Amino acid sequence: MGDRERGQRQARAGRRDPDGRGAVTELSALRPLAGLRVVEISSFVAAPLAGMTLAQLGADVIRVDPIGGAADVNRWPLTEQGASIYWTGLNKGKRSLVADLRTAEGQDLVARVITESGPNGGILLTNAVGRAWHGYEALARRRPDLIHLEISGRADGSTAVDYTVNAATGFPLVTGPAEHQGPVNHVVPVWDVTCGLYAALAITAAVRHRDATGAGSRIAVPLDDVALATAGNLGFLTEAALCGRERPRLGNAIYGQYGQHFTSADGVAFMVVTLTGRHFRDLAQVTGAAAAVAALAEALGADFADEGVRFRYRDVLTGLFTTWFREHSAADIADALAGTSVLWDRYRSFAEVVAEPRVTDNPLFTVLDQPELGEHLAPGSPVSVNGEHSPARVAPRLGEHTADILGAELGLSEDAIAELRAAGAVGADIKERTSS
Amino acid sequence: MGDRERGQRQARAGRRDPDGRGAVTELSALRPLAGLRVVEISSFVAAPLAGMTLAQLGADVIRVDPIGGAADVNRWPLTEQGASIYWTGLNKGKRSLVADLRTAEGQDLVARVITESGPNGGILLTNAVGRAWHGYEALARRRPDLIHLEISGRADGSTAVDYTVNAATGFPLVTGPAEHQGPVNHVVPVWDVTCGLYAALAITAAVRHRDATGAGSRIAVPLDDVALATAGNLGFLTEAALCGRERPRLGNAIYGQYGQHFTSADGVAFMVVTLTGRHFRDLAQVTGAAAAVAALAEALGADFADEGVRFRYRDVLTGLFTTWFREHSAADIADALAGTSVLWDRYRSFAEVVAEPRVTDNPLFTVLDQPELGEHLAPGSPVSVNGEHSPARVAPRLGEHTADILGAELGLSEDAIAELRAAGAVGADIKERTSS
Repeated sequence: MGDRERGQRQARAGRRDPDGRGAVTELSALRPLAGLRVVEISSFVAAPLAGMTLAQLGADVIRVDPIGGAADVNRWPLTEQGASIYWTGLNKGKRSLVADLRTAEGQDLVARVITESGPNGGILLTNAVGRAWHGYEALARRRPDLIHLEISGRADGSTAVDYTVNAATGFPLVTGPAEHQGPVNHVVPVWDVTCGLYAALAITAAVRHRDATGAGSRIAVPLDDVALATAGNLGFLTEAALCGRERPRLGNAIYGQYGQHFTSADGVAFMVVTLTGRHFRDLAQVTGAAAAVAALAEALGADFADEGVRFRYRDVLTGLFTTWFREHSAADIADALAGTSVLWDRYRSFAEVVAEPRVTDNPLFTVLDQPELGEHLAPGSPVSVNGEHSPARVAPRLGEHTADILGAELGLSEDAIAELRAAGAVGADIKERTSS
Repeated sequence: MGDRERGQRQARAGRRDPDGRGAVTELSALRPLAGLRVVEISSFVAAPLAGMTLAQLGADVIRVDPIGGAADVNRWPLTEQGASIYWTGLNKGKRSLVADLRTAEGQDLVARVITESGPNGGILLTNAVGRAWHGYEALARRRPDLIHLEISGRADGSTAVDYTVNAATGFPLVTGPAEHQGPVNHVVPVWDVTCGLYAALAITAAVRHRDATGAGSRIAVPLDDVALATAGNLGFLTEAALCGRERPRLGNAIYGQYGQHFTSADGVAFMVVTLTGRHFRDLAQVTGAAAAVAALAEALGADFADEGVRFRYRDVLTGLFTTWFREHSAADIADALAGTSVLWDRYRSFAEVVAEPRVTDNPLFTVLDQPELGEHLAPGSPVSVNGEHSPARVAPRLGEHTADILGAELGLSEDAIAELRAAGAVGADIKERTSS
């Protein structure tokens, strides 16, 4: 990377907070939640992603952890030196407070940070279910306009995680190669991610309600309900309920449309999708199959202008198009498809992706100097406002802001903080996450 | 009091649609966006889901379609009678306006509905990219405080869809059975869903900013950037960039932890996950493998308290636990696991899911009498507020509210609307989506 380029990247990354405290609090279109204070007692993906998303919108988000960190503190992937890429990735731009969450004293301090935080505070985001001390009732007694959002596994408060919710919802039995027996889990933790975004949205909307009425909200976002609602909205559940059909396992074909993956002469896989008649005609044309498609249509009495008919005859169509893909190089295929309306892309590995201009020359990514990881390109918010992205900001070290928060927010003196540290009620000092 | 301020007060105070035509606009914790007016020019998943999510929060959302419907109007799944379950599922609780979007007259009417809609209107949500007439510049000339959100395939405005973005981002090469060659697409359109939720959040946050400053926002949410940001946040890209590692294809094993699927004596598949030492000890215990695990730990010098060590030795551990699963019935396995801390669930088909109390006895689902589909259980918002869900509401028929909207919002007379209909500038009447 040249100096000029580095300078531009740093400029895009924006200024580092001079005192390392984290929050940039100027209200702007890019930071519309500036001024809000959110406390997050969390672990793993959904709740941390919700908090990080609120931080990207300008909120001051304090992640609270027990001494030594929560159960996600050493979650893989790790660097060669053992730092959790996962933890830093999901906690960018937050402040960190560490306290002994098993003692009444530690609990009281955290409850005060949640509730004694000005008119735009009083917001708790948590996936730590069933802890009375930070349950709605206990905190709403301290602060009636509390916004309390709890992410649980299931609506009854019982435990479930993305992997188990996914198994229970139906997708793994229709994912994977058509000939495969048994479940195929997807790798993206889609329910965690979806749940985290619903949670960020619910808090933002609850703030609008509180601004207008003064009333708080008690919000629940169960992972299981997120998965069920999504499976319902997308028609998977409704189809089963109304039509009594089980959707088949289709490999990489697209249900009810024509889409498939193909492999080039030099072994590169392409995903090809046709959603409209024009897409499909272009695909037939570019693969030199237009006459053969027309002949098939006539012989079969099949109207390929109908997306369902294209789906029904997907195997013969795939067989027809396959020859062209197999006999052309990836470069030639890409050139030819680029001149059409067909929707397509080449499959890539994560290692290929990070080397592409799509990442290296994308304002979504800025160079982040994350102490435990070293400099790397990290994503900010995928939402740009007036042409700008909220850039990636450094994730805190565990407990990094404990003393700042106790001093500035609760007005504790340095001596009082030192006493709490000595008693073990709060994190003794900045603790390396990788030391356990 | 200025017009804008008055409008805000009205919106916050809440009002009921005087002629009872659908939108319940009383502000409440469950409907914190009551009073907002959002126009959606959309198709497929991301933008319709964003609009539906805003409607669930109380906004009045008008979906605008061209005459005959957009490209998603007949999208599968369909009922036996040919109605699109997909379309109704993603457009619940909206109003529908149909106009000829190819003519200047039709475009002008829609632009007026977007911009002449009171202080809490002026919000456009669209995935129809590159149409100058509803681009930011054209609409902001009519209404400077416009909130304009565009969902595109890629940040440069070029076309991409969930399937092609997914291929280009890395997940299909690490999804599926370990021995499989070639890409395995997942079935959930995760980037569409995620993109839609980011969009709903961005609009909600932009409204907060406009309420505070009077300024609008020009917002872009490219599918590709949503996928890249998520892959980055979750560590997939960062791991590849920092460590130069390609993550292996792991089947249903969980990266960096111990988790796997197992099959019972009677052929039922279970997903089993251990995220903590306690989970893992409980799994060893319940499967009668505690002594064998201890012996392995000693012989291998392996500390199974470390999640990474459990991952490294996942094959031998799976081999050990498999015997117990294979020799017990699903019922016995479920009973035994229920008494432990282990995270687990049984794989289910969509047909099984819809028959479970988890759907049939879940307040998330209510009976919806959707004319084209018939009565069925449909999900509302998966977010509950103060114990209540925003329930599913009927999806409109295409063009159902055209005349209402032109009359009430633009003040057009019945004669003027009849003329527009006769000229074909707006939908001639309620059109059945299934008639094309």
